[in-house]
Amino acid sequence: MQLASCRATQPAHRIAEAVVTVTDAAGNPLEDAELAVAQTRHAFGFGNIGFDFIDLAGGAGHPGDAELAELYLELFNTATLPFYWGRFEPREGEPDTTRLLAAARWFRERGVALKGHPLVWHTVQPDWLLGKGLDEVERLQRERIRREVTGFAGLIDTWDAINEVVIMPVFENGENAITPLARAKGRIGMIRMAFEEARAANPHATLLLNDFDLSSAYECLIEGVLEAGIRIDAIGLQTHMHQGYWGEETMLAMVDRFARYGLPLHLTETSLVSGHLMPADIVDLNDYQVESWPSTEEGEARQADELARHYRSLVGHPQVEAITYWGITDAGAWLGAPIGLVRADGSRKPGYDALHELIKGEWWLPPTTVRTDERGRFRLRGFTGDYEVARAGTSARSAICLAQQQTQSVYLTMEVEGQAR
Amino acid sequence: MQLASCRATQPAHRIAEAVVTVTDAAGNPLEDAELAVAQTRHAFGFGNIGFDFIDLAGGAGHPGDAELAELYLELFNTATLPFYWGRFEPREGEPDTTRLLAAARWFRERGVALKGHPLVWHTVQPDWLLGKGLDEVERLQRERIRREVTGFAGLIDTWDAINEVVIMPVFENGENAITPLARAKGRIGMIRMAFEEARAANPHATLLLNDFDLSSAYECLIEGVLEAGIRIDAIGLQTHMHQGYWGEETMLAMVDRFARYGLPLHLTETSLVSGHLMPADIVDLNDYQVESWPSTEEGEARQADELARHYRSLVGHPQVEAITYWGITDAGAWLGAPIGLVRADGSRKPGYDALHELIKGEWWLPPTTVRTDERGRFRLRGFTGDYEVARAGTSARSAICLAQQQTQSVYLTMEVEGQAR
Repeated sequence: MQLASCRATQPAHRIAEAVVTVTDAAGNPLEDAELAVAQTRHAFGFGNIGFDFIDLAGGAGHPGDAELAELYLELFNTATLPFYWGRFEPREGEPDTTRLLAAARWFRERGVALKGHPLVWHTVQPDWLLGKGLDEVERLQRERIRREVTGFAGLIDTWDAINEVVIMPVFENGENAITPLARAKGRIGMIRMAFEEARAANPHATLLLNDFDLSSAYECLIEGVLEAGIRIDAIGLQTHMHQGYWGEETMLAMVDRFARYGLPLHLTETSLVSGHLMPADIVDLNDYQVESWPSTEEGEARQADELARHYRSLVGHPQVEAITYWGITDAGAWLGAPIGLVRADGSRKPGYDALHELIKGEWWLPPTTVRTDERGRFRLRGFTGDYEVARAGTSARSAICLAQQQTQSVYLTMEVEGQAR
Repeated sequence: MQLASCRATQPAHRIAEAVVTVTDAAGNPLEDAELAVAQTRHAFGFGNIGFDFIDLAGGAGHPGDAELAELYLELFNTATLPFYWGRFEPREGEPDTTRLLAAARWFRERGVALKGHPLVWHTVQPDWLLGKGLDEVERLQRERIRREVTGFAGLIDTWDAINEVVIMPVFENGENAITPLARAKGRIGMIRMAFEEARAANPHATLLLNDFDLSSAYECLIEGVLEAGIRIDAIGLQTHMHQGYWGEETMLAMVDRFARYGLPLHLTETSLVSGHLMPADIVDLNDYQVESWPSTEEGEARQADELARHYRSLVGHPQVEAITYWGITDAGAWLGAPIGLVRADGSRKPGYDALHELIKGEWWLPPTTVRTDERGRFRLRGFTGDYEVARAGTSARSAICLAQQQTQSVYLTMEVEGQAR
């Protein structure tokens, strides 16, 4: 039996194998048929922020946007869209829904899954919330959750329900209306509010708790949330590494601490710079302000190496389901840091190619020709995800979803022009 | 109306005032009677460890013990007794109950309240627990909680139910049977176990959660515990300051963070050295090992100043109900650090006198003569606590408990020899 297989043999938990039996519409095996098999999507979430394409999606793209989009879509299957309340609704009652709906559709039409970020946070808050009473702030916060989750259901079904709760009630780096609410309701009360509202608005949504504080504090918070009976669908772990790559050992030790809860883990915000490192003594990354933070040749080589190590180690961990990188391009990157995979001039950094070599290389099944045996069978081995089977010389196509818990046998019916045999 | 008053006017929340009306057994006011009024006990818990007097209490005291005890009893109204499992029951089934019961009685006979420390902890564990299955470890841990809390009920009614839970499931500084149990049950599961067992064994006990990790992690843990419906009676905050006094501002900001939960706060473990400071880069204080750590004249002056500031600021916080200092003498002090209030040779350090000047000076009503008015009345103002009223020239005595929520009027009957008037 012929085999169509990706190059990778590891990590074993990502690779599924199946015997595919192809029959025609009448149920007869398609014997000795030449088929083209190709992977079309990874089950693993290879994500990035989609902030850079909102204008393009709205028909107001800038020079270079289309080329950047092509690079993006070649590598990523998931995009994070911005729902920072203060920017999404800068004037009360005037949310940016239309523009974000267009962006969401643009991505979904291109096969990219979406996550909204975030529904509740203490940063980037609307000024018009200030001065309102706690009850009013809570009412508005609840309404805002319902509005966004309902309005985008079917397009965005994954949300960072609440962001950075560990610091939320004691946050002092900017006046906002959410910190006092968190102080009054407590952290778990805030989490319950966010998850309850979002869950009610879209029962099918995947809802995340997301934090940059990966210390014992986050563990304690998660344990409290689970004890309180609040259902969270995935744990979000931020890993902005402007101060340097942590290395596989530290990273996996951290991941293991959070794997204990048996929940899927999403590395929600990952950055690695291709320039000088931010000094280690900076505590709040936002406090580091430099006039220029150039991408350097040495830095780009280091970034490429670290990206490959980082992704390889995390894809290698059974409970990690997604990694979202925090920037496609250096142009307009957070903190002005050269964390992009593409330079500000639109050219690819070595890091882009290093990721591509994994995601669309070693871990990917490119179009591959196989011939079915006398019972219409061939074997397929590859990363969990979606595959397409096409019969050579015809327009007949079928899709296969290769899942971790794949039964070893897949039956495929191809509606072919000119029935086989 | 004459007034018997302590010197202090602050903090207002610690000072109660009452009009005391004294009558004879027949109910007639004791007019123009000379009374000696004196404070006998502080309501505030001024505590220290009682470890040094266990031998003395058991009739096996060492030279200097009696003098040290005198200094101790002059200053402290609460003692923490050691129930470290590994030392309390070094061989399975042979607990040190008899010796500790003698110590507990010794303190109680001298008017000192007691706290047992701790019922559950991952450090100082018995070796014989190692190698047992998780279920067996949990069963033994539960039995040990019930045994101690039941066995000492009436003598010890305050317990550190569980110690240092934030680090418990991830503790790596020594193999023990409790860390794996905490990993399996989770932090809140461990806390529930400790509190449920202790509560069932002594429904009147005051049960504490105690930790040295005063970061957001402890806040998150407490919020989870409260959400889980586990009743905790006080929050224990350790403040070992071998690396230097934190200062009033930092200390009170920390206390305020934990005051949010509306629970009484106990500063359960306080130390300030009267010698050189431990380097700031030591994370686990136990890792600092020096051959000699002398108490110096300069260090003793600093310690005295810091002790006064520390106690004054914390007694000034309405939610703090107790401060336990972690050592009376440098002899045998934890880590060999000169944290004692008394030198190894038994002489008082300036820090002892500084605390005495507050606890038994400014905040204390010494024996004071007042004369009742024509209706048998005098006014009493002092720190919340117990007071004794004695009629001059007779053996008649009565007790008054001055509480925060003191009604303004107290009626006292004195059984006097030779009726008044």
